[in-house]
Amino acid sequence: MIHDDVTEPSYPELPPALRAAFEALPEDEVRARMEGFVALALQRLRAPAGSPVPPPIPARLIARAFEAPLPEQGQPIEAILADVAEHVMPHGRDKRSPTWFAQLDVPPTDYSVFSGLLIRALAQDPITFSSARSGTFVERQVLGWLTSLAFPDVPQAGGCFTSGGTQSNFQALLILRNEALRRAGADVNALGLVEALSRTGHRGMRVFASEASHPSIFAAVRQLGLGDAGLHRVPTDGQDRLCPIALEAALVEARRQGQLPAVVVLTAGSSGVGAVDPLREGMRLAHQHGALVHVDAAHGSLLLFSQRHRGLLDGLQGADTVTLDPHKVLGLNAQLGGLLVRDARLLTLLGKVSLDYFVTSEVSDLGEVTLDGSRALNSLGAWLLLRHFGRDGYGRLVDHLFALARDFTRRLKKSGCFELFPDTPTMNMLAFRLRPKAASETPEELARENARNDALLSRLMQSRKFAVSCYRHASGHLYLRAVFINPASRPEHMAALADALIQLAREAE
Amino acid sequence: MIHDDVTEPSYPELPPALRAAFEALPEDEVRARMEGFVALALQRLRAPAGSPVPPPIPARLIARAFEAPLPEQGQPIEAILADVAEHVMPHGRDKRSPTWFAQLDVPPTDYSVFSGLLIRALAQDPITFSSARSGTFVERQVLGWLTSLAFPDVPQAGGCFTSGGTQSNFQALLILRNEALRRAGADVNALGLVEALSRTGHRGMRVFASEASHPSIFAAVRQLGLGDAGLHRVPTDGQDRLCPIALEAALVEARRQGQLPAVVVLTAGSSGVGAVDPLREGMRLAHQHGALVHVDAAHGSLLLFSQRHRGLLDGLQGADTVTLDPHKVLGLNAQLGGLLVRDARLLTLLGKVSLDYFVTSEVSDLGEVTLDGSRALNSLGAWLLLRHFGRDGYGRLVDHLFALARDFTRRLKKSGCFELFPDTPTMNMLAFRLRPKAASETPEELARENARNDALLSRLMQSRKFAVSCYRHASGHLYLRAVFINPASRPEHMAALADALIQLAREAE
Repeated sequence: MIHDDVTEPSYPELPPALRAAFEALPEDEVRARMEGFVALALQRLRAPAGSPVPPPIPARLIARAFEAPLPEQGQPIEAILADVAEHVMPHGRDKRSPTWFAQLDVPPTDYSVFSGLLIRALAQDPITFSSARSGTFVERQVLGWLTSLAFPDVPQAGGCFTSGGTQSNFQALLILRNEALRRAGADVNALGLVEALSRTGHRGMRVFASEASHPSIFAAVRQLGLGDAGLHRVPTDGQDRLCPIALEAALVEARRQGQLPAVVVLTAGSSGVGAVDPLREGMRLAHQHGALVHVDAAHGSLLLFSQRHRGLLDGLQGADTVTLDPHKVLGLNAQLGGLLVRDARLLTLLGKVSLDYFVTSEVSDLGEVTLDGSRALNSLGAWLLLRHFGRDGYGRLVDHLFALARDFTRRLKKSGCFELFPDTPTMNMLAFRLRPKAASETPEELARENARNDALLSRLMQSRKFAVSCYRHASGHLYLRAVFINPASRPEHMAALADALIQLAREAE
Repeated sequence: MIHDDVTEPSYPELPPALRAAFEALPEDEVRARMEGFVALALQRLRAPAGSPVPPPIPARLIARAFEAPLPEQGQPIEAILADVAEHVMPHGRDKRSPTWFAQLDVPPTDYSVFSGLLIRALAQDPITFSSARSGTFVERQVLGWLTSLAFPDVPQAGGCFTSGGTQSNFQALLILRNEALRRAGADVNALGLVEALSRTGHRGMRVFASEASHPSIFAAVRQLGLGDAGLHRVPTDGQDRLCPIALEAALVEARRQGQLPAVVVLTAGSSGVGAVDPLREGMRLAHQHGALVHVDAAHGSLLLFSQRHRGLLDGLQGADTVTLDPHKVLGLNAQLGGLLVRDARLLTLLGKVSLDYFVTSEVSDLGEVTLDGSRALNSLGAWLLLRHFGRDGYGRLVDHLFALARDFTRRLKKSGCFELFPDTPTMNMLAFRLRPKAASETPEELARENARNDALLSRLMQSRKFAVSCYRHASGHLYLRAVFINPASRPEHMAALADALIQLAREAE
């Protein structure tokens, strides 16, 4: 019984390069194919460390190498790797340089780089138990470790991994939007926002977050359908910390206007200067007015490892959701954000709909509680590093970074050339600007002061010895910003950075 | 002038392992440290290919190795890698086996695995030009290539990378929710959904998607605040394709109910059986009723490379947004989803709020149009593979996969043992079940038939020679599902799979 309604299969000729790339080859051949990649990686990883500042080549010149259309025929891998060496790598900067002070992430360890190879070779996708198998337990174990640090006394706490802090903040506010409406009596996943709010008798719902919150918070409120109108930007005190009196007034006002006070967002380690909002007071006010609490500790979560400094996070356990960022904190450089929740059941409010075509199994699938679908098992890198350094090692790493910040701060203060913000660093970072020349602060004066600091930043970067960044405060002041984030940075690097800045400041007088 | 209000820095002693992991070492030492990781990766990559089915070890036994609390002190890297070898790797399965037919993603090439090392070593984060530098142009070039395939005649088309198809679908519907309201006269990013809908005079807004859409579409509608009430699940025809007559009726009904017909979602390559919705007819109806169009081509986008088969996507250029999935299609196995838009300006409707502390530069930052913040430059792997295989190589790859599906289908048909769904495969996959014994279809009969197929799947998997998956159709029928996704699969593998199934089917008579 032959059916002829299916076309005779017509196999095309496959190019040898394509065949070879998908075949399993003998070990020595695989190793030989890997060597070109290893050699390029070593160029970046080996001593001496490269410059933390990329060479000042204009963008349009860099862009020239990347303008060809998609080639019709394949090119040899050697030629492509030669292009990586010639046109990609020379324009990077070395985040692992001990004088790289520009961003919040601990630079990647060698082991994080190597684990990138292993994670892709294993290809254990955490979305389901059937595709991840042992990877499911790797991921759960790391989540358990992080949960035990953030919620040590909360047995029902849990969490999930995300693509980064931005996604964690979005997912947290999504869950809390849904939970706030659930508590008010409406299922927003079924009804939608318009009908859910109407049923609970509210004119709208509101999220409260300080002006110094990470922009991903403001974006998430928009994406969730609440709009800027659904966000109350709470003023900060003189050190970028949320002002509790202003929060209380905002909560009272929202109720008076018939708004559901849904979520108070507190920041532990602001991206600007590492400010930590008053967690206990913020939570007390939120609870008093029936609001849920999200703590964005993407940066501040590194404090959890330090016995010396974790007191700064006192009260964290009262949060409903916490963003933390393993890829910022642990010396991974790849996509691994974290979201922890005080009650693991909250994670199911995500609105996920199951995939029928996955075989269900004896273990619940991690994909049920993540925004992402298929993912890489990036948590394997965190699992490896947390075991290799231990809680104590990361604690010392944090203490070292804090000591660097204090060391640098003392040097700048001693010079008298700079105004610091805040006057004493809260965490491992400091903002500073040239001591203003004028006592008044007209818009013209402000612009002139900002231009002086902008010029200082440019001159420092031109040396290509140090990378720092800048921070524009809500007041309009432009600060330079140094983040002490590399355990390879030493007191001598603090001295060198401070000396360079002080010399440039004196030249700028 | 010494200020004593800053604590004297107190540097902790850093463990040698921690110091060593962040220092740049001489090349031979870095290479030596890498070797343990390389050896494990080679175990997975070298010939012979491993089993496509993991060993049948109960989950609770696997879990035992992952129960220790976070260690206080660090452990040697050798001990940790030994645990990877003993407790992680043996439980995986080889997605690169030529008899792995379980999922939609082209298995990772060696070069994708190796590029995982390179991407992490370079650490060029695409979020800003200043952190990505040349990486910005790598990413733009790949986006340009993909855009030229999907929108060859649309100069203003553009796109961005995401963490995967699920995020692409969410971002597409987010953008289109906002655009639909913008066209109706309201800025939802400012006002929020409740007020925006009220201003446009609509009682709600509606998304239309077929019952065979990927679950991420249904989840996105909930997450965006529209609720299940804001989703019209359009019935499908006998082959899992959206039924245009039902769509038209749904659009008319929505208007009649005072709903804004916002977005019609069409699927090109359903995750169940690779069904392609009638794109031109769906778009015509959407436009006639003022709705925008999203095409989920996460799977179907591989057709774009094939001159033989790309006609199946005729009309795609009329879409406002298109999900495609480089990590499904290109033989990458890591997080790289894509979202293409017919008008690049649509990408700015995301609701992103800029980070003031990034130095702005001469080139716009890719982070302005992505949901993610910091990311890995995973597009470098796609850049490398697209150049290595060329458009023609990927086209032949697709043609090969389609030929495999037709080859397998003919063999199953010839046996007369199976009922196929659909009767002829649309793409590179096929669903099938044992020919039902009963002519009637009572619930009891259905359950009995499903149990027979479930048992068939179990017996096939027990051999550990072939991995297939299953698909539960909306009718309740349980099908086995084979996806032909590996260019290393050959006609002899089709024969082997078909023979094994036919033998099991005859034993099950």
